[in-house]
Amino acid sequence: MASEFDLIRRYFTRHADSAVLGVGDDCALLQPRPGMQLAVSSDMLVEGQHFLRGTDPRRLGHKTLAVNLSDLAAMGADARWALLSIALPAADESWIAAFSTGFFSLAQTFGVDLVGGDTTRGPLCLAVTVIGELPGGLALRRDGARAGDDIWVSGSTGEAALGLAHLQGRIRLPDELAARCIDRLEVPQPRLELGGRLRGVASAAIDVSDGLLADLGHVLEASDLGALIELERIPRSGALNSCPDGELAEQCLLAGGDDYELLFAAASSRHDEIVAIGAELGVAVTRIGTAVDGVGKVRVIRADGTTVSPSRTGFDHFSVD
Amino acid sequence: MASEFDLIRRYFTRHADSAVLGVGDDCALLQPRPGMQLAVSSDMLVEGQHFLRGTDPRRLGHKTLAVNLSDLAAMGADARWALLSIALPAADESWIAAFSTGFFSLAQTFGVDLVGGDTTRGPLCLAVTVIGELPGGLALRRDGARAGDDIWVSGSTGEAALGLAHLQGRIRLPDELAARCIDRLEVPQPRLELGGRLRGVASAAIDVSDGLLADLGHVLEASDLGALIELERIPRSGALNSCPDGELAEQCLLAGGDDYELLFAAASSRHDEIVAIGAELGVAVTRIGTAVDGVGKVRVIRADGTTVSPSRTGFDHFSVD
Repeated sequence: MASEFDLIRRYFTRHADSAVLGVGDDCALLQPRPGMQLAVSSDMLVEGQHFLRGTDPRRLGHKTLAVNLSDLAAMGADARWALLSIALPAADESWIAAFSTGFFSLAQTFGVDLVGGDTTRGPLCLAVTVIGELPGGLALRRDGARAGDDIWVSGSTGEAALGLAHLQGRIRLPDELAARCIDRLEVPQPRLELGGRLRGVASAAIDVSDGLLADLGHVLEASDLGALIELERIPRSGALNSCPDGELAEQCLLAGGDDYELLFAAASSRHDEIVAIGAELGVAVTRIGTAVDGVGKVRVIRADGTTVSPSRTGFDHFSVD
Repeated sequence: MASEFDLIRRYFTRHADSAVLGVGDDCALLQPRPGMQLAVSSDMLVEGQHFLRGTDPRRLGHKTLAVNLSDLAAMGADARWALLSIALPAADESWIAAFSTGFFSLAQTFGVDLVGGDTTRGPLCLAVTVIGELPGGLALRRDGARAGDDIWVSGSTGEAALGLAHLQGRIRLPDELAARCIDRLEVPQPRLELGGRLRGVASAAIDVSDGLLADLGHVLEASDLGALIELERIPRSGALNSCPDGELAEQCLLAGGDDYELLFAAASSRHDEIVAIGAELGVAVTRIGTAVDGVGKVRVIRADGTTVSPSRTGFDHFSVD
């Protein structure tokens, strides 16, 4: 007799074309392509920390996978497989059905097969491991930037954080603006094609999950560098420009998390190539500054030469704020 | 400035000899051995479901990895890498220090490198993904058993469940017995050497996590078979024999979870070879019955020919009991 548990588990058992053996045994069996390296990453999403209570489950299913795929994108890897573990307060079939729809829809877009995981009762918690492949030596590591490299960002940052501020009642955005920002927060698009195309082109990369300056700081720390960022070059979406609270908008731009854009460094000789890749993929890519000597120091300057001193650079789950 | 979060994270950042790139970037980079298949598995442990509140963190660190390694053992894979995601109610450094000691001590025993994961605030929840390797075609899948195969079990089952019953106050065991059973519950030993040696010898395998009969049922279902199990052949530890409640002891033997022994099937021609492997490794291996035609039907008989009807076969997180 099938228990509720079996029933729920069935939503996550789909045929995995790319696996020797998918969900249903003690382990999945995978055959990596000859000579390829594996890129692996795990992220955990907890209700109240990474998403608000009551978040639409279909969107949450998308986001749970998206934030993990974004790590593969930031490494320049091709996404292949995922494992999903869920703790759920109750075996709520309609919630699970919607969640799995969101999850598998994104998985299909990028040819990712779910090959394993776990389902249990507990406070809502989602843990994903993704596995990608890439040719050895071409990974976009954080420690590869060099002094003089251009610093680039894809798309634009800040809208996700603005959407969160709206949902939390810290600001009241007009409906259309709010909808766009909440979409950015809840349905982020991992930049997998861009990451893959930047292999052998960019010198270092990271995805913007903590905030533009915080994540830039991670790259610079790993690469033993500093950076000079020109505030006016950082792309601002229409939503950020229309935001009635200019200070909040700037904070979101520089320190808002959950954007899942790629921040990357590349030799200036690669400039035109990167512009062409962005144009071909239909993804905005913008040079926002330069890597310089001086470990971890990021200076953000305005066009008039004055320095911006952001009150915070990113998000830390254990910090009190 | 390091936040509490960074501080905690440092406990899980150790050099990973076997990885091209370990913890600290968007992804770890791994180079599988040429021609090997990967075995991957994820398990999630939630406080109150998989371990009791207040469980010693060092033991919990061991168990969190052990239950995952047990899945690799059941597949006959060699353990290589792990990823660990933790949600913690607070950044409790002494708890984390003890947990990581237990985790890394077991990891070292089996040459497993921690290559990634996540740390966040939330209700205590532990998610591990393990990655192993094995030669293609030799995995101990659940669906490989054949009618006439012997059914074997390693070690003995039931002590872990008896330990849990003691901790829950459902039975009061003498101190020495209780200590042994609680050790089995909290510090299970994954049967990785045995699993590896059974590659090419056993026809199917599973680890006993849900209960002997429940896990046997999974193998039989996958292999389209039934089984005849001889109750008196199932190894009973001294603890089970000394248990003052005979009915509970039998329930633990047949349906107690958390044993992490290997249950496997093998052609009867392999009998002596399996006995020799067990002797060489110092692991008891016992033939407890035979796989027969008849999908999913498990008959457990006593020496006098009567049939045992267990009240339950295993543990289901979503079942009400």
